[in-house]
Amino acid sequence: MTDRFSGVLSPVVTPFVNDLGPDADRLIAQCQWLLSQNVGLAVFGTNSEANSLSVDEKIVLLDRLVEAGIDTNRMMPGTGCCALTDTVKLTAHAAKLRCAGTLMLPPFYYKGVSDDGIFANFAEVIERVGNESLRIYLYHIPPVAQVGFSTDLIERLVIRYPKIIVGIKDSSGDWKNTFAMLERKWDDFRVFVGSESFLLANMRSGGAGCISATANVNPAAIYHLYQTWQDDDADSQQQALDEIRSTVMAYPMIPALKATVAEFSGDDQWRTVRPPLVNLAKDKSAELAAALRNKGFEMPGL
Amino acid sequence: MTDRFSGVLSPVVTPFVNDLGPDADRLIAQCQWLLSQNVGLAVFGTNSEANSLSVDEKIVLLDRLVEAGIDTNRMMPGTGCCALTDTVKLTAHAAKLRCAGTLMLPPFYYKGVSDDGIFANFAEVIERVGNESLRIYLYHIPPVAQVGFSTDLIERLVIRYPKIIVGIKDSSGDWKNTFAMLERKWDDFRVFVGSESFLLANMRSGGAGCISATANVNPAAIYHLYQTWQDDDADSQQQALDEIRSTVMAYPMIPALKATVAEFSGDDQWRTVRPPLVNLAKDKSAELAAALRNKGFEMPGL
Repeated sequence: MTDRFSGVLSPVVTPFVNDLGPDADRLIAQCQWLLSQNVGLAVFGTNSEANSLSVDEKIVLLDRLVEAGIDTNRMMPGTGCCALTDTVKLTAHAAKLRCAGTLMLPPFYYKGVSDDGIFANFAEVIERVGNESLRIYLYHIPPVAQVGFSTDLIERLVIRYPKIIVGIKDSSGDWKNTFAMLERKWDDFRVFVGSESFLLANMRSGGAGCISATANVNPAAIYHLYQTWQDDDADSQQQALDEIRSTVMAYPMIPALKATVAEFSGDDQWRTVRPPLVNLAKDKSAELAAALRNKGFEMPGL
Repeated sequence: MTDRFSGVLSPVVTPFVNDLGPDADRLIAQCQWLLSQNVGLAVFGTNSEANSLSVDEKIVLLDRLVEAGIDTNRMMPGTGCCALTDTVKLTAHAAKLRCAGTLMLPPFYYKGVSDDGIFANFAEVIERVGNESLRIYLYHIPPVAQVGFSTDLIERLVIRYPKIIVGIKDSSGDWKNTFAMLERKWDDFRVFVGSESFLLANMRSGGAGCISATANVNPAAIYHLYQTWQDDDADSQQQALDEIRSTVMAYPMIPALKATVAEFSGDDQWRTVRPPLVNLAKDKSAELAAALRNKGFEMPGL
């Protein structure tokens, strides 16, 4: 028995109403659909535009999701902010709601900070939240955050907080980095890759699954590979996933994900992103949808 | 007559009490001292650890400064956050308090964003704040924020909001970039360099002054060069400023600034930084103070 995550999670895209306020109703429906596809909910990830939302906006959305009956055992909200006090506030709220995990960015404004400084930040967060049910998955995404976790820092955190620091999402895009973590074999530590492109490699090396942008639109197929990675067709499944991913990634990722949801649901409201992002143009969106349909892609039940 | 800034401003270092909460009383005293040295108050800059503070913490500090009678005509608080809604809330508060300017980072989590996206972000902030007294100084610091303002983007903003987008702090560390802005000669646009190392060059090219970390500890000498840049000894003044700056910058900047304030005021509480930064070790702090004293450096009246 374990209370730790494995499988496929989606950094759920955040819908906005016309004035750019978060659209809780659409988010609830999207989360329900993702759960129906066996995909967990890493709400407030990078692809959720989480860092374009205030802490209070995120707290309201979390409350709405829980009130709507979304299973907190399937929720791993992103709670890492620049400011210690913001991270503590949001993480404490997620823990109070009994979310099974939180996905935590390091503070990402100041660059070139030391392992000691990041360690101190996580120690402060853990001590201040002071909730035994807290489970932290480190969020390593140096291409965006520019601040990340060295393997040695992870080990320090795991040794100091073995029941709380329970996993990582590695969005470095560098398989060697992921593999270096897996090789350490920390006790029941869950290593997720940040893209399904590495899902098969991760499963073959003892990893826990993936938390991937594309799980917003292609959840069933990604979950199927997770479930059947030992089958003979695993490599061809991986190849099919990669084709869908590269089709979407030919466009700016977050606007493209939202455009895809809009195209396949028929709900144009999904197109809206918050600045500094820019909506995908309608012609590009149609082009993307056509390219996906051309590959037999669909989003059943959306 | 103009309501725009010129001269020397300090991104005022933020003191913390023992539990890492902001120390309003010490901040007020420090601001009073800086004003006595003819230096304006760019509170909540990078060197203020502003991005390690929540919006609410910044609002409380702003209120305390104004209640203490700090001249809002000398205040240019940093108000740019990752989330549109945070930037709007903090900027609206600063404008309501009649701060003469705000120094605004672009949203800095998402990388590789377009000029259109950053323009849209600023347009939203300006329209939502909806305060005619708002005056924005763009904060260009690509080495840290990793997101910045192209010269063309600045021009678009100035053309669209000529009374509101009134200046920039260029912390690119690239004089060619500063000079490219100066050459555009936008009407009464105030170009500040982000380091006093470029102060003389900036003044000779029509710039407005500097907003510099080191103005926290060496305000009088920096202001003196600003005031007398046309004098014969300007180059030697610049050289003396550079020597003090390089002495401090031999250590991690923010902990070193705070250690310097602690050493020269005798108030050890100033040493404390928030994670992810780490206090300067006592022996390094003493070494830095000795090196500064060796150059005849002092902080009179602190």
